[in-house]
Amino acid sequence: MEIKALRSLILSVLLKKYRRVDANLMTDVILFGELSGKTTHGLIRLFVGESSILAQKPKGKPEIIRKSKLSILIEGNGNPGMLVASLAMKEVIKLAKKSGFGIVGTNGCFSSSGCLSYYLEKTANENLIAIIMAHSPLAICPYGGVEPLFGTNPISFGIPANPRSLIFDMSTAAISYGAILRAKTLGYKLPENVVLDKEGSFTTDPNKALAGAIVAFDRSYKGSGLAMMVEILGGLWTSADFVGKNTIGGWGNLFMVFSPDLLLDVNQFKDRVSKLIETVRNSRTKDGDKVRIPGELTISTRDLNMKRGTVEVEDRLIQELKNLI
Amino acid sequence: MEIKALRSLILSVLLKKYRRVDANLMTDVILFGELSGKTTHGLIRLFVGESSILAQKPKGKPEIIRKSKLSILIEGNGNPGMLVASLAMKEVIKLAKKSGFGIVGTNGCFSSSGCLSYYLEKTANENLIAIIMAHSPLAICPYGGVEPLFGTNPISFGIPANPRSLIFDMSTAAISYGAILRAKTLGYKLPENVVLDKEGSFTTDPNKALAGAIVAFDRSYKGSGLAMMVEILGGLWTSADFVGKNTIGGWGNLFMVFSPDLLLDVNQFKDRVSKLIETVRNSRTKDGDKVRIPGELTISTRDLNMKRGTVEVEDRLIQELKNLI
Repeated sequence: MEIKALRSLILSVLLKKYRRVDANLMTDVILFGELSGKTTHGLIRLFVGESSILAQKPKGKPEIIRKSKLSILIEGNGNPGMLVASLAMKEVIKLAKKSGFGIVGTNGCFSSSGCLSYYLEKTANENLIAIIMAHSPLAICPYGGVEPLFGTNPISFGIPANPRSLIFDMSTAAISYGAILRAKTLGYKLPENVVLDKEGSFTTDPNKALAGAIVAFDRSYKGSGLAMMVEILGGLWTSADFVGKNTIGGWGNLFMVFSPDLLLDVNQFKDRVSKLIETVRNSRTKDGDKVRIPGELTISTRDLNMKRGTVEVEDRLIQELKNLI
Repeated sequence: MEIKALRSLILSVLLKKYRRVDANLMTDVILFGELSGKTTHGLIRLFVGESSILAQKPKGKPEIIRKSKLSILIEGNGNPGMLVASLAMKEVIKLAKKSGFGIVGTNGCFSSSGCLSYYLEKTANENLIAIIMAHSPLAICPYGGVEPLFGTNPISFGIPANPRSLIFDMSTAAISYGAILRAKTLGYKLPENVVLDKEGSFTTDPNKALAGAIVAFDRSYKGSGLAMMVEILGGLWTSADFVGKNTIGGWGNLFMVFSPDLLLDVNQFKDRVSKLIETVRNSRTKDGDKVRIPGELTISTRDLNMKRGTVEVEDRLIQELKNLI
């Protein structure tokens, strides 16, 4: 499908419910997911039950409820994560451009912020280093435990570099919640050793997984500890939900943004990062292949689709979109 | 051995080479390693060849070479990592207390900063959130590669809480460099699946490992990506060494410190963290045991030894220390 046509289709759907300025912001995030091949964070987010963008029940506009020279806390007021995170990104870039550092937290959303790579790239392209954490509801059990307490809690980094920014976005979960829902719907089995049933034994049955918990990505204490840190910094600190407490706080996001200039001139920083990337890419491998650089596939897929001007989308999804207008 | 006696023994050794004020700072870090059971970062650091504290060749005092309202860069000038990191910690606490955020980088060290938990606890006990990254020389290969490019690159977090601060300190390597040296010395085999030989096959032979590389802790792209981020933020950004480039820059450290107050009143923050810790600890497990909280064993071991006033140290190590005076 032509990207232009897809864009206006998504926009039309969102305009049924949201103001044009907000619909535009969210359309960009959804489109990034589709174009970059991260389709789990693309169009599908319009059709995921109570955490669908269209199912959100905003109580008002997102509001800044705490502010200092370096920080802002945004109450999402039930607006979609993609909208509130887009606003947070704009604010944090402003803070960091002014003072060299900025931090913005968000709470009160009940849907995904979309693909974090979208925000990482935008921020890094402004010559700023970004660390973004996103907190979602109960999914991962702590190492040694069986009860889902932490979200799938990604931690992600955006690094300015030439010719393209470097982005690294990792969930601390061994499998995404979406993949479990998908396996249930399609009747697939799950991979081994990624989810526990309610009793704490590994299972490949998605139904049992939904009553159990996802393990941390490394199946050990380090991944569990990282998930816990994201729960604290991205959930608890932002006054979102945490380990199932404060359940009116919803999903949380934390944007921390730094000017490279705090420690090094920005051009020198970017030159060095580019040198580092090339050293890693061209380092020795067992089979002579190049080493893959984090985030490159995401960005190059997006760029290729943009160049073509078209993107492949399932007909069924397009039809369902059209039905929503 | 009595802790007091051990302290003055370490101090006497360091006073042979360093000023009293500096020797005192380093003694505290070494003692923390011994008392907390993290003996790989204790006394042994006086006896580890060219990266021993006593083998360092300072070219002068550590110097602040870049400064802004929120940031400081310290050139270590060949001083021990434990000294320069202690100074960095003091500076970053001052910055964060004044502005809500501070960042301090260090370079020009050629030895370990010791146990990061030491700095994490000190900073968190000042009611500040700490993220500390430490960069060391070539050890981990990138996922898909076989060449050691990243250090063992820990990333660590210190979180204020009641009654005790929460600390989480993880290396991004599957095994420590020290453990390989130890296995070689004692003729042990290494665990399976933690190191590659030069050709890129897993080996348990420490000699082959030393010519090869350590894999990331999760043996996958997430751990490798995290190691790469620490290489960039803790090494490249601080003008230390990175992926074997800029080899005069040595080992690097990055201290990022945040006041909880940026987003939430500090007492509320601490209360919530304590609630989160208890929820995790008491959550359901397969065998009914409590869930272990990151860093608790380290701190409780230290506290127990402090209460006793004594700590167990190998006689041979004490004798070697005495020989150094």
